[in-house]
Amino acid sequence: MSRFTPKNPDFAARVRDSFDRQGAMAHIGAEMTRVDPGAVDIAVTYRPELGQQHGYFHGGIVGMIADSAGGYAAFSLMPADASVLTVEYKINLLAPSDGTRLVAKGRVTKPGRTLSVCHVDVFVERDGHEHLCATLLQTLMTMTGKSDGLASDKKKS
Amino acid sequence: MSRFTPKNPDFAARVRDSFDRQGAMAHIGAEMTRVDPGAVDIAVTYRPELGQQHGYFHGGIVGMIADSAGGYAAFSLMPADASVLTVEYKINLLAPSDGTRLVAKGRVTKPGRTLSVCHVDVFVERDGHEHLCATLLQTLMTMTGKSDGLASDKKKS
Amino acid sequence: MSRFTPKNPDFAARVRDSFDRQGAMAHIGAEMTRVDPGAVDIAVTYRPELGQQHGYFHGGIVGMIADSAGGYAAFSLMPADASVLTVEYKINLLAPSDGTRLVAKGRVTKPGRTLSVCHVDVFVERDGHEHLCATLLQTLMTMTGKSDGLASDKKKS
Amino acid sequence: MSRFTPKNPDFAARVRDSFDRQGAMAHIGAEMTRVDPGAVDIAVTYRPELGQQHGYFHGGIVGMIADSAGGYAAFSLMPADASVLTVEYKINLLAPSDGTRLVAKGRVTKPGRTLSVCHVDVFVERDGHEHLCATLLQTLMTMTGKSDGLASDKKKS
Repeated sequence: MSRFTPKNPDFAARVRDSFDRQGAMAHIGAEMTRVDPGAVDIAVTYRPELGQQHGYFHGGIVGMIADSAGGYAAFSLMPADASVLTVEYKINLLAPSDGTRLVAKGRVTKPGRTLSVCHVDVFVERDGHEHLCATLLQTLMTMTGKSDGLASDKKKS
Repeated sequence: MSRFTPKNPDFAARVRDSFDRQGAMAHIGAEMTRVDPGAVDIAVTYRPELGQQHGYFHGGIVGMIADSAGGYAAFSLMPADASVLTVEYKINLLAPSDGTRLVAKGRVTKPGRTLSVCHVDVFVERDGHEHLCATLLQTLMTMTGKSDGLASDKKKS
Repeated sequence: MSRFTPKNPDFAARVRDSFDRQGAMAHIGAEMTRVDPGAVDIAVTYRPELGQQHGYFHGGIVGMIADSAGGYAAFSLMPADASVLTVEYKINLLAPSDGTRLVAKGRVTKPGRTLSVCHVDVFVERDGHEHLCATLLQTLMTMTGKSDGLASDKKKS
Repeated sequence: MSRFTPKNPDFAARVRDSFDRQGAMAHIGAEMTRVDPGAVDIAVTYRPELGQQHGYFHGGIVGMIADSAGGYAAFSLMPADASVLTVEYKINLLAPSDGTRLVAKGRVTKPGRTLSVCHVDVFVERDGHEHLCATLLQTLMTMTGKSDGLASDKKKS
């Protein structure tokens, strides 16, 4: 159960639709494994091209799915005519992302009309357990009247 | 001219060698375009798989090269038997990364025996000019006695 | 119940003793209202000199007790011969700190031998309820073999 | 010379007037020593109540003047009917603030209609030299149609 009520009843379809149009997420094989009001999870399974030469997930992949999970968590609570833009984030890398699958769990800390704040915990699955490997604190902006999706989707004219 | 004196006279070869072994940097086509004591630039030329469907560089690519540029700037000042680990960073996305080439300029703010602090400005080249599109403030750790390179390089045993 | 086991069985006395020697904390009237392994709360009651001319707590006071609550939460898990140093923090101000009392709840996210990461939520009490007004993500360093207390305590020689 | 053109020709009087109404800044004895478009310095001279028991400036004082210097730098570029709100900041403490005077130099990195980004370097004066002791990266919001001054000034009704 979520403690948030979405402004857009079709939030889940809208979040998934925007995610599916994100070329870079497809490129790394990321999947959206949870979409609830204010809570979105994004996971990716290990492949050599996502890693270091020695087999961990690359830090850039950790940051990329964490930023997206928080961004879509905020987007899930936005009105139907808005898009979302990442203003900034801070990420602490807590442990090597050594495992077979990475899951970023984005949660809205505080939704707002203009700005929202999210936190994201990233876990790596290893030996059947989830290990916390990174944590992110993020500020996002509602872009009202813009086309849907992440602001990076906006049309280049 | 750099205001820093490297502890390792072979710093440039060591930085470039570590970078060349970073599979993920090769995967996105990143090049190291400057290596001076405490100053490293990393650039990447636009390709569709680095972008959004509408042709900007993806935010994850911006974060990835910014983190690496700061990490290698710090690494350039470390002793020969050390490796570098990103502890955390904060990035502000200032403008859409709309252009043909992205350059992250990592500079050491304060080197330290255990911890170093770097700042990185990321510019996008458009119409023959560099436009500031992101800025990053980062904390890095010296891992003494570890194999060289970014800590994410360390061997999985 | 805490999920952490303190390295120093006298952690609570040691944390409180260090706090009591912090002149600036006494100066603003801050109290330590909880000391458990990896969890420290610091509270302050409203007085005009802690506020704006219109009666909110000043943002600087919010940051000051949040930084201390996280720092002492990390310190509670450190060995008896160590002191703690704030490396960096990021704080998001979520709502005006409009109320009669401010409570910063510092919690250890990840303890470490050299570096620890904490998160702190700051609540303002208003109309008998706690309202989240700020959240902080912080990196701290264990200074082994230094005098106890916050590193800012260290003797000026 | 500043690279920014202020929207409000009376920006300097307006910045100084808001600062003078900040009770907490008066309480710690802070002075505004520079006001240019996009550039504001705030300084404070050492007094025991601003310090640790051993004579350094308290970290909370460092954060307080750094946040204000960045906030007023952003405010100097805002329209006459706007106020400024700190959204978030990250601060790295680089060295002990051991000296007789602290100066925070706030500079606008990127002004914006809704959000501005500033960086602030804090120096401590010791033996006639300025030593960098902290650096801050900050996001601020323009509150249009609000009473002037820092948003924390807004009237409690």
